[in-house]
Amino acid sequence: MRKLTVGLLVLFTFSAASLADETRTNVIFLVGDGMGVSYTTAYRLYQDDPATTEVDRTIFDDMLVGMASTYADDHSLVTDSAAAATALACGVKTFNGAIGVDSQHNPVDSMLDKAKRLDYLTGIAVTSQVNHATPAAFVAHADSRQSYDKIADQYLDLRINEKPKVDLILGGGQAHFIRKDRNLIKEFRALGYSYESNIKNLSRIKQLPAIGLFSKLGMEPALESSNPLRLSEMTEKSLDLFHNAAKKNPDGKPFFLLLEASQIDWCGHANDIACAMGEMHDMAITMIIIKRFIDKNPNTIFVATADHSTGGLSLGAKGQYQWNASNVKSISATGPDIARQLMANKSNWRTVWQTLTHIKLADDEQKTLDAFINQADENASDINVSQVGTQVLAYIDKYTATGWTTKGHTGEDVQIFSYGKGKQNFSGAMDNTDIAKKLMNYLNP
Amino acid sequence: MRKLTVGLLVLFTFSAASLADETRTNVIFLVGDGMGVSYTTAYRLYQDDPATTEVDRTIFDDMLVGMASTYADDHSLVTDSAAAATALACGVKTFNGAIGVDSQHNPVDSMLDKAKRLDYLTGIAVTSQVNHATPAAFVAHADSRQSYDKIADQYLDLRINEKPKVDLILGGGQAHFIRKDRNLIKEFRALGYSYESNIKNLSRIKQLPAIGLFSKLGMEPALESSNPLRLSEMTEKSLDLFHNAAKKNPDGKPFFLLLEASQIDWCGHANDIACAMGEMHDMAITMIIIKRFIDKNPNTIFVATADHSTGGLSLGAKGQYQWNASNVKSISATGPDIARQLMANKSNWRTVWQTLTHIKLADDEQKTLDAFINQADENASDINVSQVGTQVLAYIDKYTATGWTTKGHTGEDVQIFSYGKGKQNFSGAMDNTDIAKKLMNYLNP
Repeated sequence: MRKLTVGLLVLFTFSAASLADETRTNVIFLVGDGMGVSYTTAYRLYQDDPATTEVDRTIFDDMLVGMASTYADDHSLVTDSAAAATALACGVKTFNGAIGVDSQHNPVDSMLDKAKRLDYLTGIAVTSQVNHATPAAFVAHADSRQSYDKIADQYLDLRINEKPKVDLILGGGQAHFIRKDRNLIKEFRALGYSYESNIKNLSRIKQLPAIGLFSKLGMEPALESSNPLRLSEMTEKSLDLFHNAAKKNPDGKPFFLLLEASQIDWCGHANDIACAMGEMHDMAITMIIIKRFIDKNPNTIFVATADHSTGGLSLGAKGQYQWNASNVKSISATGPDIARQLMANKSNWRTVWQTLTHIKLADDEQKTLDAFINQADENASDINVSQVGTQVLAYIDKYTATGWTTKGHTGEDVQIFSYGKGKQNFSGAMDNTDIAKKLMNYLNP
Repeated sequence: MRKLTVGLLVLFTFSAASLADETRTNVIFLVGDGMGVSYTTAYRLYQDDPATTEVDRTIFDDMLVGMASTYADDHSLVTDSAAAATALACGVKTFNGAIGVDSQHNPVDSMLDKAKRLDYLTGIAVTSQVNHATPAAFVAHADSRQSYDKIADQYLDLRINEKPKVDLILGGGQAHFIRKDRNLIKEFRALGYSYESNIKNLSRIKQLPAIGLFSKLGMEPALESSNPLRLSEMTEKSLDLFHNAAKKNPDGKPFFLLLEASQIDWCGHANDIACAMGEMHDMAITMIIIKRFIDKNPNTIFVATADHSTGGLSLGAKGQYQWNASNVKSISATGPDIARQLMANKSNWRTVWQTLTHIKLADDEQKTLDAFINQADENASDINVSQVGTQVLAYIDKYTATGWTTKGHTGEDVQIFSYGKGKQNFSGAMDNTDIAKKLMNYLNP
C-alpha cells in the first residue's frame, strides 16, 4: 500500500469561502473516453506498490456508485463516441456518428445548452481537439462527427442570448479554429475572449471568457508530454476561473463544466496499455482536484463515467493467470514513440529499448525487432513507425499479459462515479441517457 | 422491450407467513463463476426483444449495488476460482489453488462454518460438482483444489456439534462421493440424510438433512439439459425446505444458503458465448426466485457476485462496432454438442448446422467445416469433437462479433448485486474479502 502522489502538480488551494449562490448547483461532468472496467482495475494495480500485500484504493474506488449501458440507437449495440456523447450530453439515443442530433437527424438541446439558457457559466476542457465527438455533442449539431470545421464554426456561431455558448474552451484543435477560410480565434477575440496557444501559459488566463487551444489537433499523449497532467491543470484553472467569477459577481453564478480524458480511448484503439495508464493517471488526479473543490464547495454535483470501453482490454491473456502491472509501470513511452526512438538509434536500439521499457526480450525477439528496425528507412516513415510500433506493442502485451480483442469499441456497461450533492442519484444500473436526464435536473433557474 | 419469461419453471409461491425468527437474518450468497461485466451486459442484450428500441432491464440491473476487486495473494493479480472462493467464503486473501486455507496454509473458518456454529440451517446448491472450488471453500480445507476426493470426504468428516456442516447439498459429483474406496452417500444416509440421484426427483426431498447428486461430475450445461433451469429449481427447493423447517420449529432457525451458477465460467473457458448465455439465464431466474422469497421474507440478505471474469469476453471484436445478440439467441447448443451432432450427421450436416445455429455460412466456410467433419472418424473421438468444435466456435464468434483474449481468467473487477435487509452495505467499490466480512456480520447468535 502506498499513498497516491499527485505528481509535480502544485494543487491549487481553493478559498474556504464557497460559491455565492447556494440555491443553484454547480455541475461537473467528466467523461473518461473508452474507460471500461478493465481500465480502472488496471490503474489500481498500476499505481499500487507491489511490495505490499493489499492493493491500494484509488479515487475511482472512492467514488464508484453505479454502472451505465451504452448501446446506440441503430441495433449495432456497440456505440461510437458520437452517439454515446449525444446520449450523455442530451439524454437521447441516436445513431453512430451523430453529434447533438436525434435518430431523425433533428438537433437536440444538451445540458450545456440548458445551463447557458439558465445563465450558468459554462466550460469545456479536454485533451482531444475541443471539437472532437464528446465535447462537440455538448455544443454543436451535425449528422457526422467528421465535420470538424463545421462543428468548430458552431462553437462561435451558435448563440444563446447573443453570445457563444461556452465561456471557457480548453484543449487542442488549432487546425480547426485557425483555418485559411476562417479564423475563429480572431472572431472569438473580437467578442472579448482572451486566447492562449501554449499550455505553459495557462496561468495567463485571468478571466472569462477565454479560449486556449494548445495543439493543432489532440494534445500530446500524457506519456509523451512535458505536461502529463494537462487535464488536471486545465481542470484546476477552470474551477479557479469559475470560482473567482462567482466571487466577483454579487448575484453569483453557478457553472457547468464538461471535462474529458479523451485519449484513454485513443490508447485503447492503439492497444497500447502504457499509453492508457498515462491517461488514466491524469484522469485520477483530475478527480482528486475535483473532490477537493467539492469539499470546499459542497453545492456541486460531480459525475464521471465512460462513453464505452475500447479495445476489449483484459488483464491476463492467452491463458496466463497474471497481469504484470510493474512491467507496465516501467514503460515510459507510447508504442509509436518507442518505435521512433528505436529507429532513430539503430546502432544502439537495445539500450534505448531497455531504457524506455525495462523489458528483457528473448534472443529471437531481439532478432525480429532488429530486422524491423533495420528495414526502416532513414526518415522513419509512418509505415515504418506503424510496423515497428506494432511489434513493440506485441512484446509489451506479451510481457505484461495484456489482452485485446479489437482496435474498436466494445459494448459492455461502464462505471459511474459521483461525488457531492445528491451523488446517490447515480447509484445502481441505468442507461447512459439517464445520466444526462438526472444531471439536467440539477440545472434550475 | 419485452417481459422476461420465467421459462417452463412453475414458480413456487412462498407462504405469506414469514420465517419465525425475526431477530436473526437469513443469508443467501450466489456466485456467478466467471461472470464479468461483459456477461451481464451480453445477457441484457440476449434476452431483449430486438424489434423495440429500448433495451429491457434485467434482474441484474435491478440489484446492482457495487463492484469488487478479485486479486489473489500471490502477486499474479489474476485469481483462480479457489483463491477467490476462499476470499468470498472466509474473508481472507490466499494463493491460487487454495481451498479454505490462508497464505500460510492454515485452515480458516468460512461464513458457513460460522453460521453452523450459530445453529443456522445450511445449504449448498451448485451446477458443478458440489466439491468444486467455490462450494468447497465454504466447507473444506485443502492446499489444492484438485484434491476432489479429500474435499468430498471433509463434507462428511468435518463436524460442528458432531454433525456434518451442511444440511442440504445439491449439485453434481457422484464420482467423488460414491467411490470404490469409500461410499460417502451411504455414510450420509446413516446419519439421517435422504439422497436423490436424479434432478427429476427433486420433489421427493421433503425435509432436511438431504443430499442430491444429480450427475457424475458437473451437471449438464443448460443448453444441453432437459432441465436448463436446474439452479433455479434447486434454489426454489432449498428455500422451500428452509422455510418449512423454520415453520415447524417454534424457535425458528435462520439459514445460510450458498448458490453457484458454476458453469458460466466453464463456458467462458471454452470461449462459447451461447453456452454462457444459457447459464446466465438460469442465474437470472434464480435471482428472480430469490427476490420473490425476500419480498415475502424481508429478514433476509441476498448478495450475488462473481469470483472473477473468464475468457476476456468482449461484445464487439476485430474492429466491428456491433454485437449480434439475436444470432447468439438463435444458437441452441454448445460448441462441442454442435460438433458431435454435425459429425453424427455427415451426409446432411448443413441442415443440422442450420437448425442448431441459424447462421448462414459462406461457401468457403462450409468447405472448411465440411473437411473437418469428414476427417473425423466414425466414433467422433474427443480430439475430433475438439477440432470441429473449435471451428464451430470460431464461426459463432465471427457471426456474433464476440471477442475473447484467453481460455483462462482475467483480472478486472466484478459486480456486486444485493437485495433485502441492509443491501446498501454492499454499495460502492470494495475487495472481495470485504463481501465475506460484511456477510459474516449478519450471522449472529
